[in-house]
Amino acid sequence: MNNFDFLDNDRLKKQIEFLVEIDKMKNIFRRTVLIDGSRRENDAEHSWHFAMLALILNEYCSEDIDVSHVIKIAICHDLVEIYAGDTFAYDSEGHKDKEKREKEAADKLFSILPDDEGKEIKELWLEFENKETPESRFANVCDRFQPLVHNYLTNGHTWKEGDVHAPQVLERMSVIKDSAPEIWNAVIGIVEESVKRGILKP
Amino acid sequence: MNNFDFLDNDRLKKQIEFLVEIDKMKNIFRRTVLIDGSRRENDAEHSWHFAMLALILNEYCSEDIDVSHVIKIAICHDLVEIYAGDTFAYDSEGHKDKEKREKEAADKLFSILPDDEGKEIKELWLEFENKETPESRFANVCDRFQPLVHNYLTNGHTWKEGDVHAPQVLERMSVIKDSAPEIWNAVIGIVEESVKRGILKP
Repeated sequence: MNNFDFLDNDRLKKQIEFLVEIDKMKNIFRRTVLIDGSRRENDAEHSWHFAMLALILNEYCSEDIDVSHVIKIAICHDLVEIYAGDTFAYDSEGHKDKEKREKEAADKLFSILPDDEGKEIKELWLEFENKETPESRFANVCDRFQPLVHNYLTNGHTWKEGDVHAPQVLERMSVIKDSAPEIWNAVIGIVEESVKRGILKP
Repeated sequence: MNNFDFLDNDRLKKQIEFLVEIDKMKNIFRRTVLIDGSRRENDAEHSWHFAMLALILNEYCSEDIDVSHVIKIAICHDLVEIYAGDTFAYDSEGHKDKEKREKEAADKLFSILPDDEGKEIKELWLEFENKETPESRFANVCDRFQPLVHNYLTNGHTWKEGDVHAPQVLERMSVIKDSAPEIWNAVIGIVEESVKRGILKP
């Protein structure tokens, strides 16, 4: 028996089923730990934090952007990980089939929704992945800067786990350079300070 | 030593310090449990889920709304709980000093930000609390409907803990009636089905 069979509005039923399914985001864990170091962060928390970065830091974007659109990308950008799982940023092996895994996950997840909305959410996700719009580039700035701050404040937790060196971090953060130069200065400062403290290998 | 002393941009330093402080949202636990029943939900996860409800269900709002504004309210509405804690929806004792506790928390938290942004975030929070705009009313719809669905799918978890009866649930959900009549129909259906299943007292 379906839990929402009493609803005679089929469209609303699909929407609620989708909203129930995405509760699983709260159990998809990332490599990054919370700033207090107590445990790994999950995708729902990360998506919220990313949205907050977009709201607070958008003035530093070098391009004209609609911040509301960045926030929509933020809350939707990791949904496919419900089925595809989180791929560690510095895992080149996992990245080989990431696209295929995520494409299949997107088809499965977004088809729970009515067609028009499934298409809308899928487009937000693809926009983020393709980095072809100013909003998606700034979204990538926020998505990368947030774990950088976490790693810096947790003694390089994820960098140590992955044996990551400073040049790899700068390469991973490079999207920030053109899209938000002032935040890029902060990235350089954090990386230099991390190397100085011995929590990131040079 | 402050962790961001190497930054010469004071404004950006304040913004990063705020974004670090709000990581604590991930450790503020609500009464509601995840739909898989495994543990209580935290405020960061709830805020993200609430934002997703706004994105997916806004077509049912009976008033003209800017959904982007509802999403901004969603991600900011519970920030004060970092210092004020979560007040259980059906705890009349806790609600007596809720306003005072949250006002003090707001002053403390939002003053970490540059003045203009602190004011902006505080206004989003107050707008949510005051329910005087169409966006804030629909935000309240999403904020209440989300835990209703969780309670229904976790055998009335929070209702049982709080010895809550159906009329109290309907009273708590009443903001939904005028703001989103179609979602109100779903509320009625869920409450009736919950009573029928014996997971909510009549």
